[in-house]
Amino acid sequence: MKFVKMHGIGNDFILVNGFKEQMPPNIPLTAQNLCDRHFGIGADGLVFLLPSEKADIRMRYFNSDGSEGEMCGNAIRCFAKYAFEEGLVHKESFTVETLAGVMLPRLVLQDGKVTAVTVNMGKPSLDRDKVPMSGSAGQALNEPLRVLDTVFYVTALLLGVPHCVIFVDDVEGIDLGKYGPAIEYHPAFPRKTNVHFIEVLNEHEMKMRVWERGAGLTLACGTGACASLVAAVLNNKTGRKAKIHLPGGTLDIEWALNNHVYMTGPAQTVFAGEVKDVSLIK
Amino acid sequence: MKFVKMHGIGNDFILVNGFKEQMPPNIPLTAQNLCDRHFGIGADGLVFLLPSEKADIRMRYFNSDGSEGEMCGNAIRCFAKYAFEEGLVHKESFTVETLAGVMLPRLVLQDGKVTAVTVNMGKPSLDRDKVPMSGSAGQALNEPLRVLDTVFYVTALLLGVPHCVIFVDDVEGIDLGKYGPAIEYHPAFPRKTNVHFIEVLNEHEMKMRVWERGAGLTLACGTGACASLVAAVLNNKTGRKAKIHLPGGTLDIEWALNNHVYMTGPAQTVFAGEVKDVSLIK
Repeated sequence: MKFVKMHGIGNDFILVNGFKEQMPPNIPLTAQNLCDRHFGIGADGLVFLLPSEKADIRMRYFNSDGSEGEMCGNAIRCFAKYAFEEGLVHKESFTVETLAGVMLPRLVLQDGKVTAVTVNMGKPSLDRDKVPMSGSAGQALNEPLRVLDTVFYVTALLLGVPHCVIFVDDVEGIDLGKYGPAIEYHPAFPRKTNVHFIEVLNEHEMKMRVWERGAGLTLACGTGACASLVAAVLNNKTGRKAKIHLPGGTLDIEWALNNHVYMTGPAQTVFAGEVKDVSLIK
Repeated sequence: MKFVKMHGIGNDFILVNGFKEQMPPNIPLTAQNLCDRHFGIGADGLVFLLPSEKADIRMRYFNSDGSEGEMCGNAIRCFAKYAFEEGLVHKESFTVETLAGVMLPRLVLQDGKVTAVTVNMGKPSLDRDKVPMSGSAGQALNEPLRVLDTVFYVTALLLGVPHCVIFVDDVEGIDLGKYGPAIEYHPAFPRKTNVHFIEVLNEHEMKMRVWERGAGLTLACGTGACASLVAAVLNNKTGRKAKIHLPGGTLDIEWALNNHVYMTGPAQTVFAGEVKDVSLIK
């Protein structure tokens, strides 16, 4: 099975052209084995490019634990670049069927090369019942929350998954390994939450550190960057468009007036490879 | 640059045929970038196969931090298999120039395929001054050592690096994340030590869990498995030849009468790949 390995600001994926390659019989097990970083290829997820009946192309995304994911903002940028460069699509903007609905990535091209991809990440839900976060009705906006030995001022919203955004003066000074899990599992968040600490550099730029629900410290969280920009706008910290610097790289986020959030970021091809016999791995 | 990715019981390497591929200009930086598990190919080390003036072939081994390693027992098995299958050597046993001297791996062949490789790992040093371990002169053999809230009976020896071997009834019941670092940094070991907990299953078989000096919990430690067999013989727990089951797989270890320790284990090719431009990674 031929594949390419790509990453979007450090979130890395194995991509397989399902127009040419045969789908493995047991995809969840194959995803687990191929994503293993010592015995397999190693990745955060396995992505298949497939024909679609209702869009230009179809993406199936499997997490490294074998579960099928609805969508992944960093993966779809890699998907879009690879689909274009493989000649599976020929337009700068095209429709992609995913379990989260039909997505519409737009390529940023320079001399015929894809340098970045913009993805519509959907609309945020600001109502705390939707996040969900406990407390009286309305938005959870810069609200005090006791966490272990301190009080943080949190803004909570739903964008794909629950996000809790906290603005601080010095993002490097935060003990994320201590406060991240304490907030993720805080009783105020009945479905748990992603946790984002944000240092606003100026009204167009911020620095972000992420604690992801179920994954812990990660290099990047696309929906979290989008949620953080929305929280920054709501708290009058930035304009509706800003660069967000994550540990794995930088994303450009815009909360457009149509209420949709657009994420623009790079997608990098690292290498092409071939596994002789997928069933022999692990 | 073309490469293959291989592993020896979970210890994984990028191998480059230096007879065909050009050496990158800055090897330490290239090793760091290629070994990065999110932005690069991902591996524990980068291995080059090169011509030698004093042996059949030469191995250069770079750790994922960019430092050049003297030798690595799991890497040389992969090296030997790849060298044979690429047609760079044509014998079942051949000499390999390394920074630790000339090694002599021996291939185990089945129907012309390499199924395992035997490597002479050298002689153990049992004198505690050599390990080094503090205390009165002689061997450190099943000796009580206070560690945090408990006392372990330890056997210490040098085999490449310092090893501290502890026999227990139930290896899974040991809190390795707690006791591993406490022993690694114990004042009794002035150069620190690898830590191995061993459960003897019978006189031909044991189960091992590893805490590696500088690396923590790992799937496998070749020299540690060799040291553990020597410790088992010294403590009358097994014969001079035994199977050792590590988290990443099984090694066959023999402490021969010539005092050399021989390790036999598998080497698995996972995939072949090609990086278009190494300088673009990271």
